[in-house]
Amino acid sequence: MKPEISIVKLGGTAIDNKEALDNFLCAFAAIPGYKILVHGGGKIASNIGTRLGVEARYVNGRRITDASTLVLVTMVYAGLLNKSIVAHLQKARCNAIGLSGADGNSIQTSKRESAETDFGFVGDMKAGSVNVNLIQSLLSAGLTPVFNAITHDGSGQLLNTNADTIAAALAKSLSELFSVKLIYAFDQPGVMTNLEDPSSLIHTLNEKTFLQLKSENTIHSGMLPKLESCFDSLKNGVDQIVLCHTSAIESINSSASQHTTIILN
Amino acid sequence: MKPEISIVKLGGTAIDNKEALDNFLCAFAAIPGYKILVHGGGKIASNIGTRLGVEARYVNGRRITDASTLVLVTMVYAGLLNKSIVAHLQKARCNAIGLSGADGNSIQTSKRESAETDFGFVGDMKAGSVNVNLIQSLLSAGLTPVFNAITHDGSGQLLNTNADTIAAALAKSLSELFSVKLIYAFDQPGVMTNLEDPSSLIHTLNEKTFLQLKSENTIHSGMLPKLESCFDSLKNGVDQIVLCHTSAIESINSSASQHTTIILN
Repeated sequence: MKPEISIVKLGGTAIDNKEALDNFLCAFAAIPGYKILVHGGGKIASNIGTRLGVEARYVNGRRITDASTLVLVTMVYAGLLNKSIVAHLQKARCNAIGLSGADGNSIQTSKRESAETDFGFVGDMKAGSVNVNLIQSLLSAGLTPVFNAITHDGSGQLLNTNADTIAAALAKSLSELFSVKLIYAFDQPGVMTNLEDPSSLIHTLNEKTFLQLKSENTIHSGMLPKLESCFDSLKNGVDQIVLCHTSAIESINSSASQHTTIILN
Repeated sequence: MKPEISIVKLGGTAIDNKEALDNFLCAFAAIPGYKILVHGGGKIASNIGTRLGVEARYVNGRRITDASTLVLVTMVYAGLLNKSIVAHLQKARCNAIGLSGADGNSIQTSKRESAETDFGFVGDMKAGSVNVNLIQSLLSAGLTPVFNAITHDGSGQLLNTNADTIAAALAKSLSELFSVKLIYAFDQPGVMTNLEDPSSLIHTLNEKTFLQLKSENTIHSGMLPKLESCFDSLKNGVDQIVLCHTSAIESINSSASQHTTIILN
């Protein structure tokens, strides 16, 4: 039987709120067994960017990572946020180790090439991006990897990668060796048909219902990539996927918990 | 017989010069066997600090790490510089892993307490600061640790620590398990009695000569803490200590090399 591992993606506004972040990290530290945390940025990156004169740039509605933005996100994601999170987890007696994809060559990506849009220093996952051997050896040494969204191309270039995509790729790759539970923690209690109505939370969502709700435009468009990725992950070895509020990760195994479980059928 | 390890402290201006840094990192990557790199900051931290409105503060001539400065150095040292160095070492086929002291609880320090001066978020090394077991397990996994100057207190607080001090503490602690060669790479070819005269380079410096030169004020005062630390390291298990220019680390084993070897007698 494969050992279990929990891979938690920290999203939403908790990363910008000291109390919410502390509570989340304490709950994460209390998860038994092997675990990995993946985090993105937050408003602090935009705030520091504004102070540095680095403004968010969009082309055709898509965010561009130009050279100044790469410097900014490397400082904020891989430096300030990653090390603050690791220090807080150490306080909670979780032996965390912060990693960018360059560290130990843990995640090697390819710079996105697009004929239409120059996305700049954006790294896309590819087959074999995740260094499973490295991660396994860190886990075996009692360490809890904490990934930020900075990766590298193996040729000296740092790249900015979507943190949801990193979490999904880790989950799929590690499913060779582990029974993987993937948890997306964010600002909603799960998938809802009406964001204004807590009772509209979908407790269990299978692919058939998802496709139906998608065709009816009942699910917020911002959720679609995450959910499509979830079904792909389930088809590629991931055992369990849960979407929940960042304040709810400690209770997702209780029957009273408010969250969405994603299943295939 | 203990295995050998080279611990290299990168100082001086090379970290701010792309070509000099590339050359240094290629030479570092080529060092055979176990190795560790320790780096400090550079002018880029001051430049970004100026753009963020974080100015260097001094009290009684000593640099203060206030909360804004800690945010700045965590971003620049642990984020931008550390990850750029790691990505470049990966390019040079050196399996580097960037570490702050919080990562894997690798270096735990104590916030400096002083009745006279509030140094702010400065961490001092203490007995047992260096997590030798962690570093050994990373080295055994084929990884090359790259330490920045950010440490933590184990209670959630990041701290700023002198990179020379980190290098010396690593060297002394690892001497239990390794035959340690400690190399300080900086902007001079070694210890000189006249900084304007390359021929004044001292090729071998023992403690007796050092004390004599110190009493004659022949050695630049900025070098004294580094040299005093060197003799302390040699008395505490470190096998070899070399001071050299950052451009010279690849040739320190050749007879024509320009560097200073520190010896006890």
